[in-house]
Amino acid sequence: MRTEYMNRLVEQIRRSDFDAVLLCPSEELLFFAGFSPMMCERFQGLFVKEDGTMFYFCNLLYADELRLELPEDVPVYPWFDGDYMTDVMRDVLEKEGLLGKVIGVNSSAQAFNVLEIMDKVDVTFRNAKPLLEETRVVKSHEELENLRHSAWIADQVFEKALHFIKPGMTEGEIGDFLMREMIALGGETPENIVAVGSNASYPHYSGNSRVVGEQDLVLMDFGCTYNGMYSDISRTVFVGDVTDEQRRIYEIVDEANAAAEAAAVEGAWIPDIDQAARDVLAKYGYAETLVNRVGHGIGYMVHEAPDIKKSDERRLERGMAFTIEPGIYIGGKVGMRIEDVVVINENGEREVLNKAPRELIVIR
Amino acid sequence: MRTEYMNRLVEQIRRSDFDAVLLCPSEELLFFAGFSPMMCERFQGLFVKEDGTMFYFCNLLYADELRLELPEDVPVYPWFDGDYMTDVMRDVLEKEGLLGKVIGVNSSAQAFNVLEIMDKVDVTFRNAKPLLEETRVVKSHEELENLRHSAWIADQVFEKALHFIKPGMTEGEIGDFLMREMIALGGETPENIVAVGSNASYPHYSGNSRVVGEQDLVLMDFGCTYNGMYSDISRTVFVGDVTDEQRRIYEIVDEANAAAEAAAVEGAWIPDIDQAARDVLAKYGYAETLVNRVGHGIGYMVHEAPDIKKSDERRLERGMAFTIEPGIYIGGKVGMRIEDVVVINENGEREVLNKAPRELIVIR
Repeated sequence: MRTEYMNRLVEQIRRSDFDAVLLCPSEELLFFAGFSPMMCERFQGLFVKEDGTMFYFCNLLYADELRLELPEDVPVYPWFDGDYMTDVMRDVLEKEGLLGKVIGVNSSAQAFNVLEIMDKVDVTFRNAKPLLEETRVVKSHEELENLRHSAWIADQVFEKALHFIKPGMTEGEIGDFLMREMIALGGETPENIVAVGSNASYPHYSGNSRVVGEQDLVLMDFGCTYNGMYSDISRTVFVGDVTDEQRRIYEIVDEANAAAEAAAVEGAWIPDIDQAARDVLAKYGYAETLVNRVGHGIGYMVHEAPDIKKSDERRLERGMAFTIEPGIYIGGKVGMRIEDVVVINENGEREVLNKAPRELIVIR
Repeated sequence: MRTEYMNRLVEQIRRSDFDAVLLCPSEELLFFAGFSPMMCERFQGLFVKEDGTMFYFCNLLYADELRLELPEDVPVYPWFDGDYMTDVMRDVLEKEGLLGKVIGVNSSAQAFNVLEIMDKVDVTFRNAKPLLEETRVVKSHEELENLRHSAWIADQVFEKALHFIKPGMTEGEIGDFLMREMIALGGETPENIVAVGSNASYPHYSGNSRVVGEQDLVLMDFGCTYNGMYSDISRTVFVGDVTDEQRRIYEIVDEANAAAEAAAVEGAWIPDIDQAARDVLAKYGYAETLVNRVGHGIGYMVHEAPDIKKSDERRLERGMAFTIEPGIYIGGKVGMRIEDVVVINENGEREVLNKAPRELIVIR
């Protein structure tokens, strides 16, 4: 158990309408408890009550392994495959004084399990993802250091990719290269999106088979964790040559990125940062082409609070970490984005963690 | 859209208490719709109504990509990051006549999103995982053929592993070998558990760092998909030598496996198959050491209906596919299991798809 973080959570629960919070296996459980077992379709999780006591509910097949991870005073209540899980859950919630109560769930709780319990047992589950994010929205010096190193890994891998990418390669081959190089530099849980040509017009493109042409665009969006803290970088590069139209769009995206980064200072009203990028796009007639938020918080999860968007109405504080990633997306035609991780650092300064070049690059 | 499967689903919805079913990105969506996009924390999914009409609700950033996948007559309703998702959901459910109605959710629906909608919008979500599994519990000839080929891949990789495993290797190295070899034989979405020595006492062990000793036990549990159909095999092998105690336990597990496979005939009452394995274990004083179900259904998901357990009270039908995998687990001490995929085939015969040797193997 990571006591400091767990104390923060208990304090948040006391201030909330929840009587307890459920942490199913996830980066969130890892953050608070220091471990996270495999999760299958069998319902399991750590229940944290507002009095600070805890218990773990799981299938019998996980019980021995969890007993090793948990402090002795945290009970493990197992249910067996041959039982009806909801019957056992009812008995446990009764014993723990949670019948008729409200329990907040984390981001990995499976709806079918939670709804099944609500159907059969007198208990109410509600969304506790925002509450959990509040416990880690302000990063410590150590966490900022890990974010810096994680961004450094991403920067190094981008530079290596510039020497690797050649016409004839598939998106998948470039993605595999990024994954290998992140791991080689000590990164964990690497992820990537590589989109060639018009595929880059889909921000969360998930294919991998298009081949880089003799004259083409490659959008790379990737990152990994270092000591649990994520990096997340996007760069759009050109292979062979770049057209005037591509150069023009790239420069608009770059200007939008710079405007949002400039607006991201301690105390800034978050919707204003989002608007700063949109104003640049609108100036050039691309108002409708940024189909998503300008950025997202980042830390123990690749997406966490704060979001850089109109509806996240709060001010930037020292220790907050987030991406700035405006793009232009015209479905099936054009897509480009430039993404950096930015923090409000220990001195209250805006610090752009990614140092990888942002100027237009043509690989020849 | 895969019309035949979708028709089955609509028929199941009509027979149920649900007014619609929600399919979030998953193998289930892939099964019915032939595609499944990337899923992040932004709520999205295909809603299938009992009149057979459908609509897709997603974040704007996915809209263009989904428009390409969906038939023209299926509306895509996007919400934008700057909006409140639940406001847009309310409008869409009203337009589609689903306010105040009951919607079943698939296995990948995220609880925090579904609960947030139930909090803000007049709609009830419930567990539809069992209903979805009923639509595919009986496999077609083509699906059985794909299951056979998938099991063949797993068998081949097991044979190769016997020549690969050596003292000094880590669990992770053996796992990586299994993954590579499955892919090399045309398998997709490979998965593995490799547990050395006492780690095998945790059925869903998730570590990877223990080193194989000069005289040790290695439990391998792995599988992949072929044309979407999963394999899942477990074998426990010995390196260097085997003790009399290990041999005795191995033979009990093997006898339990054989008893359950013998009981798994067309028309068999599923709880009896589970009991057949447990009776063997009890005979030797190991009644309490099988901490999970004897098996699980397998097909488009690695775990699907029917479960081979006391509480899955139904009879085996022609076309059903499931694993038989009794084990003996004594937490922190001993763990062994033998797992095959078994089907009730086109002729109503029990057919064990895995042909990999089951006799006790010592790698020297």
